[in-house]
Amino acid sequence: MTSDVVKLVEVGPRDGLQNESRRVPVAVRVNLIERLIAAGLRNLEVGAFVSPRWVPQMEGSDEVMRSLLPLPGVSYCALVPNEKGLEAALGCGCPEIAVFAAASEAFSQRNINCSIAQSLARFEPVLMRARHAGIPVRGYVSCVLGCPLGGDVALTDVVRVSTSLYEMGCYEISLGDTTGVGTPEKTKALVRACASEIPLASLAGHFHDTYGMAIANLYAALDCGVRVFDSSVSGLGGCPYAPGATGNVATEDVAYLLHRLGVRTGIDLDALVHAGTYIDKALGRLTASRTARAINARSDRG
Amino acid sequence: MTSDVVKLVEVGPRDGLQNESRRVPVAVRVNLIERLIAAGLRNLEVGAFVSPRWVPQMEGSDEVMRSLLPLPGVSYCALVPNEKGLEAALGCGCPEIAVFAAASEAFSQRNINCSIAQSLARFEPVLMRARHAGIPVRGYVSCVLGCPLGGDVALTDVVRVSTSLYEMGCYEISLGDTTGVGTPEKTKALVRACASEIPLASLAGHFHDTYGMAIANLYAALDCGVRVFDSSVSGLGGCPYAPGATGNVATEDVAYLLHRLGVRTGIDLDALVHAGTYIDKALGRLTASRTARAINARSDRG
Repeated sequence: MTSDVVKLVEVGPRDGLQNESRRVPVAVRVNLIERLIAAGLRNLEVGAFVSPRWVPQMEGSDEVMRSLLPLPGVSYCALVPNEKGLEAALGCGCPEIAVFAAASEAFSQRNINCSIAQSLARFEPVLMRARHAGIPVRGYVSCVLGCPLGGDVALTDVVRVSTSLYEMGCYEISLGDTTGVGTPEKTKALVRACASEIPLASLAGHFHDTYGMAIANLYAALDCGVRVFDSSVSGLGGCPYAPGATGNVATEDVAYLLHRLGVRTGIDLDALVHAGTYIDKALGRLTASRTARAINARSDRG
Repeated sequence: MTSDVVKLVEVGPRDGLQNESRRVPVAVRVNLIERLIAAGLRNLEVGAFVSPRWVPQMEGSDEVMRSLLPLPGVSYCALVPNEKGLEAALGCGCPEIAVFAAASEAFSQRNINCSIAQSLARFEPVLMRARHAGIPVRGYVSCVLGCPLGGDVALTDVVRVSTSLYEMGCYEISLGDTTGVGTPEKTKALVRACASEIPLASLAGHFHDTYGMAIANLYAALDCGVRVFDSSVSGLGGCPYAPGATGNVATEDVAYLLHRLGVRTGIDLDALVHAGTYIDKALGRLTASRTARAINARSDRG
């Protein structure tokens, strides 16, 4: 795998911080993003244009966006739930957006208050307007290996929703194991099913480490040819469905795996660990990354 | 993999507790072992006959052994470094022993104060006497995917030491990734190399989660046909070479993976999580198991 390159999408500043109970000010969020870029990350989800009533952690995403320096090769993305969100995103020069659907009907209802079909219908004008504005759109599909409400999710449902988003114009579909209940075997079946309808190069893996399976599942997806993965520095975010449980796979652990496999990521692991320590201190939390813990333990001794 | 059965060797009460800085009394150790058996574990490493000057955590291993009820289908094992240790083990009716070698010369010198060749020579009379006493002997080989002192370890060295122990009479060789630097690819190469000299059924995987790779590596070994794995409840033990870092893979996480793969282990995961909580409270530590955290988070809500 030595000659391969993997693209990491850093979701800590949005998906991560959005799911931390403590809020951090805009300046800290910007500082975190800048540190992540300095550590070599090039694709970053930096905010969400959602109601601060529902997601207070993302308040000021416009300010975050305005504070970030445009840099060659660096992509900033923000979550947009609807046309109103898109307007806010366009208003502050957001260069890329993401939309969020679910493969589970129950989860769609609970999480975004509408059926899967309604959510897709809602995204249609968003995608059309984004295209006119020349803005790329990424699509998230959650619950691809299980639903926190309904348990099992049919692969056909995942493929259907993913394909809809792809055909609507999403350039990349991020497949999210929201509850972390996937296994390497199920992950491989998932990738194969989705790749039958969507080019493999347009699929991304988004794994949660709730039960400690994320790295094994990510490796399984990598083995199937997936070359884009979402991760969250320090494992920011936890699990919104089980407070105290682990959530997003930590970027440090993913980078460690990839580097040990000889895959190029452009990431400076020590700098990444420092970025994680920075935000952990601001949040008063402990890192969820084992690699970060191991590297910090080494430094403590040295 | 549905029809498969995997044997888990629970090393928490020895390898785990030995590497925790806080000591727990014999009664707590016995209680932990009994809870692990109640949770379905059948192969348990329960003590070490080593000098309490070097390993105070294992003092009273004879008492532990005498306190344990012989149970059909349950194997108790203790680590024995030399003939003196064997005598102590025999003296308290220890039904199975383990010896510990390294694949790295530097590590052997540092950890057991002798060369690899000297350690093997020391084990010869131990294995011979154990055989006369009708006691099975398990062999550990450490540093199979890297050494905390010397970095890379040659596969040929791992195969050589493992084969020596096997030919000397060890019925099972546990391959230990002491520093957790393995990857799934390197794990597969390791298993294939060892299986060229030793029957696959006599190989066990012993993975550390220092960098979060343990489950991915364990799955890779499973995929190669390994059916015996060592693990430590709650990830007891940490990493002796980097205080604060993670060590032994948590039994809860391994059981979760296996159950989700449809592999039978005989383990009651909830009871196992309770056993982990019991010893964590006694040690004043947090669990290193993500599955335990997720299950406890569920219970906290419910």
